[in-house]
Amino acid sequence: MKKIKKIAVMTSGGDSPGMNAAIRSVVRACAYYRVSCVGIYRGYEGLIEGDFIELTARSVNNIINKGGTVLKSARSQEFRTKEGRAKAFEHLQENEIEAMVVIGGDGSFTGAVIFNEEYNFPIIGIPGTIDNDIFGTSHTLGYDTALNTAVEAIDKIRDTASSHNRLFFVEVMGRDAGFIALNAGVGAGAEEILIPEEDLGLDRMLESLKKSRRTGKSSSIVVVAEGDKSGKNVYELAQYVEENLPEYDVRVSVLGHMQRGGSPSCFDRVLASRLGVKSVELLLDGQTNLMVGLKDNEVISTSIAEAIKGGHSINQELLRVSDIMTT
Amino acid sequence: MKKIKKIAVMTSGGDSPGMNAAIRSVVRACAYYRVSCVGIYRGYEGLIEGDFIELTARSVNNIINKGGTVLKSARSQEFRTKEGRAKAFEHLQENEIEAMVVIGGDGSFTGAVIFNEEYNFPIIGIPGTIDNDIFGTSHTLGYDTALNTAVEAIDKIRDTASSHNRLFFVEVMGRDAGFIALNAGVGAGAEEILIPEEDLGLDRMLESLKKSRRTGKSSSIVVVAEGDKSGKNVYELAQYVEENLPEYDVRVSVLGHMQRGGSPSCFDRVLASRLGVKSVELLLDGQTNLMVGLKDNEVISTSIAEAIKGGHSINQELLRVSDIMTT
Amino acid sequence: MKKIKKIAVMTSGGDSPGMNAAIRSVVRACAYYRVSCVGIYRGYEGLIEGDFIELTARSVNNIINKGGTVLKSARSQEFRTKEGRAKAFEHLQENEIEAMVVIGGDGSFTGAVIFNEEYNFPIIGIPGTIDNDIFGTSHTLGYDTALNTAVEAIDKIRDTASSHNRLFFVEVMGRDAGFIALNAGVGAGAEEILIPEEDLGLDRMLESLKKSRRTGKSSSIVVVAEGDKSGKNVYELAQYVEENLPEYDVRVSVLGHMQRGGSPSCFDRVLASRLGVKSVELLLDGQTNLMVGLKDNEVISTSIAEAIKGGHSINQELLRVSDIMTT
Amino acid sequence: MKKIKKIAVMTSGGDSPGMNAAIRSVVRACAYYRVSCVGIYRGYEGLIEGDFIELTARSVNNIINKGGTVLKSARSQEFRTKEGRAKAFEHLQENEIEAMVVIGGDGSFTGAVIFNEEYNFPIIGIPGTIDNDIFGTSHTLGYDTALNTAVEAIDKIRDTASSHNRLFFVEVMGRDAGFIALNAGVGAGAEEILIPEEDLGLDRMLESLKKSRRTGKSSSIVVVAEGDKSGKNVYELAQYVEENLPEYDVRVSVLGHMQRGGSPSCFDRVLASRLGVKSVELLLDGQTNLMVGLKDNEVISTSIAEAIKGGHSINQELLRVSDIMTT
Repeated sequence: MKKIKKIAVMTSGGDSPGMNAAIRSVVRACAYYRVSCVGIYRGYEGLIEGDFIELTARSVNNIINKGGTVLKSARSQEFRTKEGRAKAFEHLQENEIEAMVVIGGDGSFTGAVIFNEEYNFPIIGIPGTIDNDIFGTSHTLGYDTALNTAVEAIDKIRDTASSHNRLFFVEVMGRDAGFIALNAGVGAGAEEILIPEEDLGLDRMLESLKKSRRTGKSSSIVVVAEGDKSGKNVYELAQYVEENLPEYDVRVSVLGHMQRGGSPSCFDRVLASRLGVKSVELLLDGQTNLMVGLKDNEVISTSIAEAIKGGHSINQELLRVSDIMTT
Repeated sequence: MKKIKKIAVMTSGGDSPGMNAAIRSVVRACAYYRVSCVGIYRGYEGLIEGDFIELTARSVNNIINKGGTVLKSARSQEFRTKEGRAKAFEHLQENEIEAMVVIGGDGSFTGAVIFNEEYNFPIIGIPGTIDNDIFGTSHTLGYDTALNTAVEAIDKIRDTASSHNRLFFVEVMGRDAGFIALNAGVGAGAEEILIPEEDLGLDRMLESLKKSRRTGKSSSIVVVAEGDKSGKNVYELAQYVEENLPEYDVRVSVLGHMQRGGSPSCFDRVLASRLGVKSVELLLDGQTNLMVGLKDNEVISTSIAEAIKGGHSINQELLRVSDIMTT
Repeated sequence: MKKIKKIAVMTSGGDSPGMNAAIRSVVRACAYYRVSCVGIYRGYEGLIEGDFIELTARSVNNIINKGGTVLKSARSQEFRTKEGRAKAFEHLQENEIEAMVVIGGDGSFTGAVIFNEEYNFPIIGIPGTIDNDIFGTSHTLGYDTALNTAVEAIDKIRDTASSHNRLFFVEVMGRDAGFIALNAGVGAGAEEILIPEEDLGLDRMLESLKKSRRTGKSSSIVVVAEGDKSGKNVYELAQYVEENLPEYDVRVSVLGHMQRGGSPSCFDRVLASRLGVKSVELLLDGQTNLMVGLKDNEVISTSIAEAIKGGHSINQELLRVSDIMTT
Repeated sequence: MKKIKKIAVMTSGGDSPGMNAAIRSVVRACAYYRVSCVGIYRGYEGLIEGDFIELTARSVNNIINKGGTVLKSARSQEFRTKEGRAKAFEHLQENEIEAMVVIGGDGSFTGAVIFNEEYNFPIIGIPGTIDNDIFGTSHTLGYDTALNTAVEAIDKIRDTASSHNRLFFVEVMGRDAGFIALNAGVGAGAEEILIPEEDLGLDRMLESLKKSRRTGKSSSIVVVAEGDKSGKNVYELAQYVEENLPEYDVRVSVLGHMQRGGSPSCFDRVLASRLGVKSVELLLDGQTNLMVGLKDNEVISTSIAEAIKGGHSINQELLRVSDIMTT
C-alpha cells in the first residue's frame, strides 16, 4: 500500500462548536505526518464545484476557539445524484486528493458511505453536531458547548421567572433526540422536561406543576425539546397549561440557533483535537469508512454504516435523577 | 423637619439586572446613615398586603452580582384603585415607614406620584428597566447588561449564519423604544436595524440586503425591535424577505426573556450603587417626587412627573453610524 | 437492618464548582426518600462544633448554578485527633444523624475512613475538587468548570499575546496533577505544556519555542501546572527563557483562585445531581465507605480506601495530541 | 483644499478590547466616503518599516467582536528619533497616504503630535486603552470591557473566599490610574479599594477589615490597583495584614493580562464604531491633531496636546459610595 500524500477535510450539515478545532487538528496532524492538506468549502456542495483551499499548519492559527466553521457548511442535493458524485470524484482526482475527513452528522455520513462504495475513496467521519444523536461516540462535537449555552440562557430566564413567580416553557434544540433537553433541563434545575423519546402525557405535566406549586416553588421552568412527543409545540403547550392552571403566569422562550454557535467549551476543543488526529492516523494506516468517537474517555472508531444505523438511547438513570430533583 | 427613621424599598414592574445591586445600596446607605430599612415584596402588590421584611446591611450580602430581584416584582391592578392605595398607606403607617424608594419603570413611577399626591408620602424613584426609555437619565438600570446579553447571543447566531451563508432576523426587546435594537445592532455588526422610532420601509431593507450581497457579504443579521414600525412581526418580515429575495436562506430568532436576566455588568452594578445612595440621601434631605439618574457621568435628579412625561429620543448620529458600518 | 432516618451532608477541603449542586441533590434525594437531611457547616470543623442546619427540599432552591458552597468548607486539624472525632460523633448522636455524605477530596476522605473505622458510622464520599486527581471517577466535581474558566482566561491572554507577538507563561492550578494544565493547554492551543507528571526538561522547551517561531508563529502560550517538575516556578521559567531566547518578549500570568469559583458548567451540574442521588441511595441501601464516581458515563462506586490509594494517571494519547497540535 | 484620497490606520501601545471594532469603523467609513484605506502593522514600528496592507470594507468582516488587534501593536523606540520619523514619512509618501488615524494611548499620541509638527501630516487619535486615564473622553476604548472582565473574575474569587471565610487581595491593572480598581471594586462589592490617587494609609485598611469582621462579614475582598500608593505591592500588603490580623486567612490574586483581552462589550463596540467614523470625517473635513472622545454620550473632539496634558481625575462621589457600601 502506498502512503497517502494529500488529505481533504470538510464540514457538512448543521454547524456545531468545535468544528474549527477539528479542522485545525486535521490540518496540524497532516503537517505533522508531512501529508498535504486541502480544505473543501461548503461540504459536498464545494466538493462538487471544486471549491478547495490548500491548508498549512499556519492557516489554522487562532481558530480553535471560534464557533462556526471557517470552511463553511451546507447541505447538498446534488451530491445525492450520481452525476453530482461523479463531478466530486473528478475534482478530487484533478487535485490528487487521496482521502477525506468529513466532519458532520448522520446525513453527511450517509453520503460518504455511498461515495466510498462507488469510488472506493477512503473516508473517515468525525461526528460534529450539537444533538449527540450519533451511535459510536459518547459525545458528538459541539454537544457539550450547546449544553452550556442552553443552561446559561435558562439561568438568565430563571432570574426573571423567580422575580415574577412565573412559569416558563423553554424550547431547546433536538428534533429527534432529547439529549440537550434532558441534560440542560437537569443542569438548569427544570421542574419538568419534555423529550421526543418519552411521551409522559400532558396530565402528568399538569400534575407535576400543581405539586411544584403546592410544595412552595413560586416559579418554574419546563424545558421542551423541539421534537417533543406531546403533539403540541411549545406555544400550544403554554396555552394548554394557562387554560388548565390559570393561577400560572406563563411565558415561552425558544432558545433557537444561538445554541449552534459560540466559542467551544474546553471539552469540545480537546475532543476535536483528539478526533482530528485520530482520523488522519486512520487514513494513513489505510483505514476507511470509520467514524472516530469517544468511549469511556478513549478515542475509538466504529464502522460508519453502524454509526448511521445504531441508536443512541436516552439515559434512564438521568431521567430518574431528573424526577428526584423536582421533589 | 424631623429626621426620617425608616425607609422602605421595593422593585416594581418588569425586572432588570442591577435591581439587587440597587436594593443592596439602599439598604447599606440606610445602615450608614443609621436609618432602619424595610423591604417590600412584589412591588405595590406586597405593599397593599403588608408583605414586608426588615433589612440590615448583612441581609444584602452577596446579591450585588445576582440577576432578578430578591424582593420579587409584580404589576399591581389594585394599586390603581383608591382602596388599594389606602390599604398601602395603612401598612406603611403601621410599620412606621416614613419614606420609600421605588425601583422600576414608567408605570411604577406613575403610581408613586399619585400615591404621593394623596398621602404626601415621600418617594424617590430609581429607573430600573432594560429598555432605557426613561427621561432624566442617560442609562436605566439593566440596560447595559441587556445590551451585552443581546450582543453575545447575536455573536453566537452570527457563527452559524456565516457558516451557512444565511440571513437571520433577530428580535430583541423594546416595545416602544429602539435603544436595545439600535445599540445591540451596531454592537453586533447587524446589516440592518428596524426600530419603532423609524419606519424605513420594507423596500429600503430589501435594497440594503441586495446591496449587502452584491458587495460580497455572504451572511447577514437584521436586528428587529419588538415594537418595530414596519407593521409586520419578525416572522412576517422573514417571510416577506424570503418571497422577495429567494436567494436568501432566512431564519428567525427571538431572544426573549433572557435579556431581562443575568448577572449585571460592572456598569450596572456601579450605577445601582450610586443611585441607591443618592435616593436615600435625597429622602434624608427632605426631598420627594424625584427620580435619580445619570447625566454626563454625574448622578442627578429629575422631577418624577417630568421623567414620566419626557421622551428619550433615539440618537440620530448613531443611526448614521449604523448606516456607514453596513457599507 | 433498620432504615436510616436522618442523613447529614458536608463540604470539606478546597471548594469546587458543583458542590452546591451536589448538596442540592443530596437534600432533594433525602426528601424524595422521606429521610431527614442536615447540613454541616465548614466540614469537619463544623461537625466537631455541632454547627448544623436542617435542610428541606426548598432550602436548596436556586443554588444549582452558584459557585462555592453554601455549607462553607474548611480543613480541620482537630478532626485528626481522637478527641476531635469523639466530639464529632457526640454531635451526630445528639442530632440522631445516622449517616453522612462527604463532598471533598482525598484528605477529606481519609478522615472519613478513620472516623468510620472508629465509630462504624456510614459514610459515602462525593469527589469534589477541581484537580481531577482522584481514582475511581473519570471526572471530579468542578474539574470541567475549572477547565472552561482556565481556557476562557487564556483565550483573553492570547488576544493580547498575539497583538504584541509575545510569549506568555500561564500558571494553572494542579499541585500534584497536570490534568488541568494538559487539558486547558490543549484546549487553549498552548505551544508547550509543563505538568508534574513529566519532566520534559527545559532544553526541550527552548527547542520547541525556537521551532515555533521558525515556523511562523508570532506569539506563544506556555501553560504550566503549579506543581510542574522543572524545579523552577513560573517566574523563574519566564526569566530562564528570556535569558536564553532574548528575541522573546516574555510575560507571566498566574490564573489563581478564580479557577475554583464560578457558576458550574452543565456537565458539573448534571454530574453533581447524579452523584448526590446515588450517595443517598447507597446509604439507604446499607452501604458505606464508598465513593461515588463516573466511569464511561455511568455512575459507579469504589471503595474509598481504594480511591485514596489509587492513582489517576495522565492520558498519554492526549500528551501526544498536544505535541502534534504544536506542529 | 484638495480632498484626502487615502487614509492609514494603526493601533499602537498596549492593546485593548474594541481596537478591532475601531479599525473596522475607520475602514468602513473610508469605504463609505470613497477614500482608500491602508492598515499599518505594529504601530509606529510598522510605519517605519512600511509594513502596510490595503483594507477594503470586506477585509474587516467579523472582527468587531474580537479582542486584540488584527493590525498588531507595538511600542517603537525608533519613532522617538528624527531618523525613524523620516523613514516613516517616506513610506507614507511612497504609498500616497495623506492622513492617519492612531488608535492608542498617551504615548502614541505624543509621537503623533511630534510627527505632525515635523511633517504637517494630518493625524486624528482614538483613545484606546483599558486604563481610562486620558483627558478628553469619559471612556477610553476597552475600559468598559476590562471592568467586566475584572468583575467577573472577582465574582469567581468571591465564591471561594466566602466558602472559606477568607480575605483576598486582588490586584487589577492601572499603574497610574485607579479607575479600574475603583469601579471594579465597587462593582464586585469589595470591602476596601486601594488606588494610586489616594493613600488612605495601611492603618485605615486594618481598621476597616476589623470592622468588617465585627459586623459579621465572614469573607472579604480588597481590590488593589497596580500602582497603589501604599508603597507595598499586593504580596507585601497581604503579608502585612496577615501579621497584624492573624485571625484572617489571606490570599492574593493578580488578575494580570487577561484584563487586556476578550471580546469587547457592547458599549466598547458602539463607542469604537462612533469614534472611527468621527475620526475619518474630521480628516476629510481638513482637521488634524484632534483626539475623538465621548462626553455626555456625545462624540466630541479635543486637541491631542490638551488630551496628553490634561488629567482625568477620580470621581470623589464614587469613592464616597464605595465607603458607604462597605457599611
